[in-house]
Amino acid sequence: MNPSAEQTPVTPRSVDYAQWYLDVIKRAELAEHSPVRGCMVIRPHGYAIWEKMQRELDDRFKATGHVNAYFPMFIPLSFLAREEQHAAGFAKECAVVTHYRLKSQNGEVVVDPDSKLEEPLVVRPTSETIIWAQYKNWIQSYRDLPLLINQWANVVRWEMRTRLFLRTTEFLWQEGHTAHATAEEAIEEARRMLDVYADFAENVMAVPVIKGCKTPGERFAGAVETYCIEGMMQDGKALQMGTSHYLGQNFAKSADVTFLNRQGQREYVYATSWGVSTRLIGALIMTHSDDNGLVLPPKLAPIHVVIVPIFKTDTEKSRTLEEAGRVAAELRAQGLTVKLDDRDGIMPGAKFYEWEAKGVPLRIEIGPKDLDQGSLCLVRRFLIEQPGESAADQRKRRKQFLPRAEALASVRPLLETMQRELLERARALRAARSRIINSLAEFEEFFRGDTPGFAWVHWAGSPEQEEEFGKRFETSIRCIPFPDQIPPAAQGPGTCLLTGQPSSQRVLMARAY
Amino acid sequence: MNPSAEQTPVTPRSVDYAQWYLDVIKRAELAEHSPVRGCMVIRPHGYAIWEKMQRELDDRFKATGHVNAYFPMFIPLSFLAREEQHAAGFAKECAVVTHYRLKSQNGEVVVDPDSKLEEPLVVRPTSETIIWAQYKNWIQSYRDLPLLINQWANVVRWEMRTRLFLRTTEFLWQEGHTAHATAEEAIEEARRMLDVYADFAENVMAVPVIKGCKTPGERFAGAVETYCIEGMMQDGKALQMGTSHYLGQNFAKSADVTFLNRQGQREYVYATSWGVSTRLIGALIMTHSDDNGLVLPPKLAPIHVVIVPIFKTDTEKSRTLEEAGRVAAELRAQGLTVKLDDRDGIMPGAKFYEWEAKGVPLRIEIGPKDLDQGSLCLVRRFLIEQPGESAADQRKRRKQFLPRAEALASVRPLLETMQRELLERARALRAARSRIINSLAEFEEFFRGDTPGFAWVHWAGSPEQEEEFGKRFETSIRCIPFPDQIPPAAQGPGTCLLTGQPSSQRVLMARAY
Repeated sequence: MNPSAEQTPVTPRSVDYAQWYLDVIKRAELAEHSPVRGCMVIRPHGYAIWEKMQRELDDRFKATGHVNAYFPMFIPLSFLAREEQHAAGFAKECAVVTHYRLKSQNGEVVVDPDSKLEEPLVVRPTSETIIWAQYKNWIQSYRDLPLLINQWANVVRWEMRTRLFLRTTEFLWQEGHTAHATAEEAIEEARRMLDVYADFAENVMAVPVIKGCKTPGERFAGAVETYCIEGMMQDGKALQMGTSHYLGQNFAKSADVTFLNRQGQREYVYATSWGVSTRLIGALIMTHSDDNGLVLPPKLAPIHVVIVPIFKTDTEKSRTLEEAGRVAAELRAQGLTVKLDDRDGIMPGAKFYEWEAKGVPLRIEIGPKDLDQGSLCLVRRFLIEQPGESAADQRKRRKQFLPRAEALASVRPLLETMQRELLERARALRAARSRIINSLAEFEEFFRGDTPGFAWVHWAGSPEQEEEFGKRFETSIRCIPFPDQIPPAAQGPGTCLLTGQPSSQRVLMARAY
Repeated sequence: MNPSAEQTPVTPRSVDYAQWYLDVIKRAELAEHSPVRGCMVIRPHGYAIWEKMQRELDDRFKATGHVNAYFPMFIPLSFLAREEQHAAGFAKECAVVTHYRLKSQNGEVVVDPDSKLEEPLVVRPTSETIIWAQYKNWIQSYRDLPLLINQWANVVRWEMRTRLFLRTTEFLWQEGHTAHATAEEAIEEARRMLDVYADFAENVMAVPVIKGCKTPGERFAGAVETYCIEGMMQDGKALQMGTSHYLGQNFAKSADVTFLNRQGQREYVYATSWGVSTRLIGALIMTHSDDNGLVLPPKLAPIHVVIVPIFKTDTEKSRTLEEAGRVAAELRAQGLTVKLDDRDGIMPGAKFYEWEAKGVPLRIEIGPKDLDQGSLCLVRRFLIEQPGESAADQRKRRKQFLPRAEALASVRPLLETMQRELLERARALRAARSRIINSLAEFEEFFRGDTPGFAWVHWAGSPEQEEEFGKRFETSIRCIPFPDQIPPAAQGPGTCLLTGQPSSQRVLMARAY
């Protein structure tokens, strides 16, 4: 517990959204900057959320036939250089190891110049090149395929402007790297893993996403096709939450990985790669949290229920603590993670404030009156706001006094309700800030206005026009959505809002993180 | 599946123990060298064992009140230099990042000299210095203590002579870093975590260990006291399997971390750190495996049971496969991990061979005869050898034909038996190769002989004599054991076998990995 955090107020979203984001992270003790340029420290509460995410994702990867492995984090420079597009894409953000020893010199520790490496090593920004060098040993014939491997790892992409969770020099992620005998199979795999990500985003994170393809200019360096999921944050900006790439034979060619196909011919192997990272914690914060701090979907909450005993006298203290212990035990027996906050010297109000800021979905208050009446006071972290409702009314609605047995039986259903309502609320926000746009004037008005968001537009411009247009409005084509991802009213062909050329379907444009 | 692995025979231990170790790893597809100097690739089967270890350890860390977090892998050179002993200890094996960008030059990718860092970054060899820099922000008073944090991470210690799992430039580990208000509490924590490691080693890995302190010369760089657990490998050599350090106030001083104690005085914080690594997989291999390949304790086996259907005709095939599917489902319902090997085109014998090499504890063979008789054939991976028993007799004893229901009911008890017997066998081996030694002549004979092992000796030499003695016999003091770790017959005071000086208790000497 960082005592200084208690005193930090959260800047309201309406005042300064960027500062609000940082305040929520600080108050919830999720992460902080480190003295190492661009690198963050993920604090225990933030890491506990990441562990929950990892478990959910890993189970899904294994259920779809993948296994985990671990590859070196150092990549010889010549390996990275093998795939030209790839090298060009990552060259400007690589941490490079050039020496392997320090020495003492005039009482100072310095790099030993005699320890210079013959070939510099790059700290992996992503692992395609080192993994495909290994796959060469493992793949001889179609019988060795598909090869379905995932890795949980840290990666480094040197960043000049960093933002906690969203963009840091070092971050944690998983990267799947699969090898296939046919292009069709590989594309199917890349699409399957995008579906896994979308399922995780919606059903675990409670963040609705749009699935689609990136435009050529936004593709992963070395990919034939990049699929992505895009979420909308509360400020209407898009956040790319996961990508899945069909790599064709590009990496197999650069690492010379061939296999004997069923027809007895040598052929280059087809590849995919796919990843999500600690960036997802940023998405979680920006989708659900409020001016009181972090809001977590129950499925990712490290603590489901916090119990705060309330007392004045010593007799009241021992009575309420005893009951709190019993309630905690009964909830734990239901498989829930329960925190009993029995700290001395901290007022109940301060405890409420702290656990709300940390996003615990449900609080149970137990005071002498509750004991006398055989009831419990349940307070949910959030509810769907009603139009025109005052903060005081909302606080009242969040609180329920229930007979003890009924209260204990209602905890799980209430968590499920909150999980569902978070997704509903996020869907409603997205709907409210999405617009079907047919003209440049309308587009300009939408993005110059106070509540920009997702714009569904017809586009048929060239890559150059796409870049120029993006710069002009600070927007980008987030994806070319799969047809079933387009809202019914936005479906069908039309004409490009810039060029007037025919377009077969709308794309998704937005500002983005 | 690496087809080439199937053809690799395992060199018998009696012929070449070092080669046997490499062969087991290759045949079981646990790991292999990568093209990056000193770095290994942990293959899926090896990584699955590590995941099992992680889960078991992590549960134990959490049960003792620890939480996980993540700190940057880059450490500014000046941070590492702050603790003098520590810097000196790690200086010779540090990977150093000096640049952050590549560029194209005459069609080649090279390090961009303009991207030189003002201060070089060291890839963490261990994280005390970077973590204590952060603890400075988190600790103000005794109320913030203890701080009990663990990190799962990769670390780098540049190695010239590497050995898969045992010694590699990059390896995976966990590192606990705790902060305490008193020396007593910190020492208690360091001892507690050593007990956690010992419990894990014996009750999960089935490797008996001796707990004790390192001599000053073998201490962790920067520690006041280093506790360790030492196991014996099948060749009689010791392997340090885990260490737990009491760091006193050394790191708090170098990072200037003080707290207000209960008496209202500022004081430096007391620290511990403790770690185990992927090296434990090496210990597992060298303790239990045999000339047929890997042997795994059931608690760490990624697959508990492999089912191999045996058939000649198509009718037999469909009958046995159907029964194999039912048996697999029934065992999975027991919570076991089951592999049904229904691959076409591979003879049952080859499958037996493959899964034995991979250490699957139990095989169930299902043929038409078993179906007709309503029985199943259970084959255990290993048993405790009887003196003078032939290989053929042993094979026979490993195999049991049991009525179906009885067979299914006996799987779990059989796995438990094997778990217990592996520990018993390892204990017996250790006992057979441990010797109470009272004279230099005896010591010399023991270590010049064919079956050296653990020597219990009285020692009262100086650090210089310790080093010289170690070089002479290629042995080292593995630890000064805690008194209860010394075999009854070896307890009590005596005189140093080198100097004749009085010694209060025996130490453990051995050759070591």
